[in-house]
Amino acid sequence: MADIGELVNIGLLGCGTIGSGVYHLADKNARELTMAAGRPFRISRILVKQIDEPRTFPADRSLMTTDAAAVLQDPEINVFIELIGGIEPARTFALDVLGRGKHLVTANKELVARHGRELMEAAARSGSQVRFEASVGGGIPLIRPLEESLGGDRVEKIMGIVNGTTNYILTRMSDEGSTYAEALAEAQGLGYAEADPVADVEGADAASKLAILCSIAFNVGVTDAQVYREGINGVRPEDLENARELGYAVKLLAVAISEDDGISARVHPTMIPLEHPLASVSGNFNAIFITGESVGDLMFYGQGAGSLPTATAILGDVVNVVRNMDRPPASRRSYWSRPGNVKPIDEALTRFYVVLRVEDRPGVLAWIAGVFGENQVSLESVVQKGFGDSAQIVMITHQVMERNFQAARERLADLDVVLEIPSVIRVESG
Amino acid sequence: MADIGELVNIGLLGCGTIGSGVYHLADKNARELTMAAGRPFRISRILVKQIDEPRTFPADRSLMTTDAAAVLQDPEINVFIELIGGIEPARTFALDVLGRGKHLVTANKELVARHGRELMEAAARSGSQVRFEASVGGGIPLIRPLEESLGGDRVEKIMGIVNGTTNYILTRMSDEGSTYAEALAEAQGLGYAEADPVADVEGADAASKLAILCSIAFNVGVTDAQVYREGINGVRPEDLENARELGYAVKLLAVAISEDDGISARVHPTMIPLEHPLASVSGNFNAIFITGESVGDLMFYGQGAGSLPTATAILGDVVNVVRNMDRPPASRRSYWSRPGNVKPIDEALTRFYVVLRVEDRPGVLAWIAGVFGENQVSLESVVQKGFGDSAQIVMITHQVMERNFQAARERLADLDVVLEIPSVIRVESG
Repeated sequence: MADIGELVNIGLLGCGTIGSGVYHLADKNARELTMAAGRPFRISRILVKQIDEPRTFPADRSLMTTDAAAVLQDPEINVFIELIGGIEPARTFALDVLGRGKHLVTANKELVARHGRELMEAAARSGSQVRFEASVGGGIPLIRPLEESLGGDRVEKIMGIVNGTTNYILTRMSDEGSTYAEALAEAQGLGYAEADPVADVEGADAASKLAILCSIAFNVGVTDAQVYREGINGVRPEDLENARELGYAVKLLAVAISEDDGISARVHPTMIPLEHPLASVSGNFNAIFITGESVGDLMFYGQGAGSLPTATAILGDVVNVVRNMDRPPASRRSYWSRPGNVKPIDEALTRFYVVLRVEDRPGVLAWIAGVFGENQVSLESVVQKGFGDSAQIVMITHQVMERNFQAARERLADLDVVLEIPSVIRVESG
Repeated sequence: MADIGELVNIGLLGCGTIGSGVYHLADKNARELTMAAGRPFRISRILVKQIDEPRTFPADRSLMTTDAAAVLQDPEINVFIELIGGIEPARTFALDVLGRGKHLVTANKELVARHGRELMEAAARSGSQVRFEASVGGGIPLIRPLEESLGGDRVEKIMGIVNGTTNYILTRMSDEGSTYAEALAEAQGLGYAEADPVADVEGADAASKLAILCSIAFNVGVTDAQVYREGINGVRPEDLENARELGYAVKLLAVAISEDDGISARVHPTMIPLEHPLASVSGNFNAIFITGESVGDLMFYGQGAGSLPTATAILGDVVNVVRNMDRPPASRRSYWSRPGNVKPIDEALTRFYVVLRVEDRPGVLAWIAGVFGENQVSLESVVQKGFGDSAQIVMITHQVMERNFQAARERLADLDVVLEIPSVIRVESG
């Protein structure tokens, strides 16, 4: 490895929106970066799928190659930035460079959420570093504050708006009264949602990010597959209206709670009180609200995506790696070494907002209340509105175990007087 | 120094509200802290003013002494936590231990804001570390994210609610319509304001914190004396009401902007749009809103004071110091080595909210508008309300240079038709 003060060469794996942003910033802010890292570094090789491709920022084409081995095995390179995304070939490349003692900075949430343990173990064996600040919350500093600043505390709860696409859609639906389909089309038109929006709107993206946050905050291994998830496609404009009348905003929240009997980790549309700091996080911003036993409530807010914000987080990681690359590794908590005990969704404790369309005749409400009662679900509020032959009942339950609520829901769906259960949304108080 | 894995002894200088919280947490979370730091540490000696004193949390009296030299010169101690507050004897103690190669963690905002350069130079000479996360924003991770995570970016602007006492007072005035005096008395009753509230309500506390933030964010030395400040005692309930009608909240903001010709650094009551994330930060919470050239807008929110939140930040610093104490110091930016060019308040560019009480007769508004025009102050909005013989005019200016606004204000005060200028508050848009 290079001596202190010597130039550090960096290999960039992938040069799309984020990669070209990293190249651009590394060049433009070279002076600040050198100061922060204690020595100069430069991107010396770039692996691309195609050299001639439109890029958000221009990058030096003479550094580009489509030959992976030429970059991965370049002996001059000590640090790799992996921006390929997805599992393969990113995983093979990452394990390859870590196996040879090179350091890795990645923004790849799927890879870290699914194979974090494997990456950490490979790095530990060869004494190299893995950093992944940009994998959650784009430019928002989160991973390092969780690891270091909160090292003297116990995290109890995480509630995050970690997907900008769905937050944009829900904000538009709430502000403009548009339907889910209209807001999604608008987000796609503005480039905030992809042509295939499934990973965002069905919560998989948020689930990966929550798995990473859980692993760091609770110091156990949680993978994306252990996170329960529900998307936003069932949320109706009427629900946002009802929510506001009841004093709530609806957000796609990633929620993780450390409880005595395990971790509750779930991504779903959630009603939160309008006065909660997360309620006013609008558009494509992200925010992560963390409750520590001693530190109390903290919130981190910022751009959760985008070329330059994400590039900033990646370069922050590179600075950290370069600052520490020639020193014996400091002891670090070994995330993922102990698998986390994640409870099944059946055992989650939440409140529920539920809408029933029922026949408008005497005794119906008593029947419904009876079904809830039989299943140990108690009600906090009930609003009934008549609509000709049918009535609509909007209810909020007290805190209840998921399995009890779902049993009541199934039983209600079977009742003749219940015509439809158009909406069920979980409610968190903060 | 101890070998890796050996127990690290810590000297605690001061054991009041925060010190006893540090002792309590270090004991309770010993397992997590050891994991995070890579080796065990314990508080082995405590310097106190008085051994028999009521404390927020109990601490081991057998470790306490009133003899400063016995703690400062204990050869077993490698890290000191300074919680004495104020300049002396904290400064002498800090320079003494740094001079002997011991590491220092401090929560002392006055000391860092006034003598940061001296502390940094002493640490650099002996190869020791100085950390001061708890000096700004209590438990909110701020200093390290600014240093490290944003090492690849250029900070353009900081706007912070960094004093919980004044935010509590302004929140109560706004929510309850109470006067400044009533809200202050209430805050004192609840222990949120001190019997002598001057340092909080007149902005000195916020100015120290802003000086520290400026120094880290802009990488130049800024001291508390360079920060312009104005307190909240002139804010009237009517102003909060007017602000809300105009779409603003009033907060005591610490504002720093990096401009081509220097830094603008000031603490004053400020109107910010209700939809700005800082507007909904209420009660005694703190929040720091940072705009980076590449990362865009970030906000950090949490408990800015209190025994355990602040203790968490201090122990985060201790973890960091212990993790790095036996390694050669990583290069670090040398804050305060280059003095910052802070512009005089005369050259600040802001908008102003101004209230005039005037004689209610024809031509008055034209006269007033004329005075503003002569001084290059243009008006964004004007609302006039008649009250019998006198009228009240509420105006918001466009962006203007401070000295031009103040010239207009003086000229207006001299006019016979202007009976009083009861309020002037700066306006920031975000």
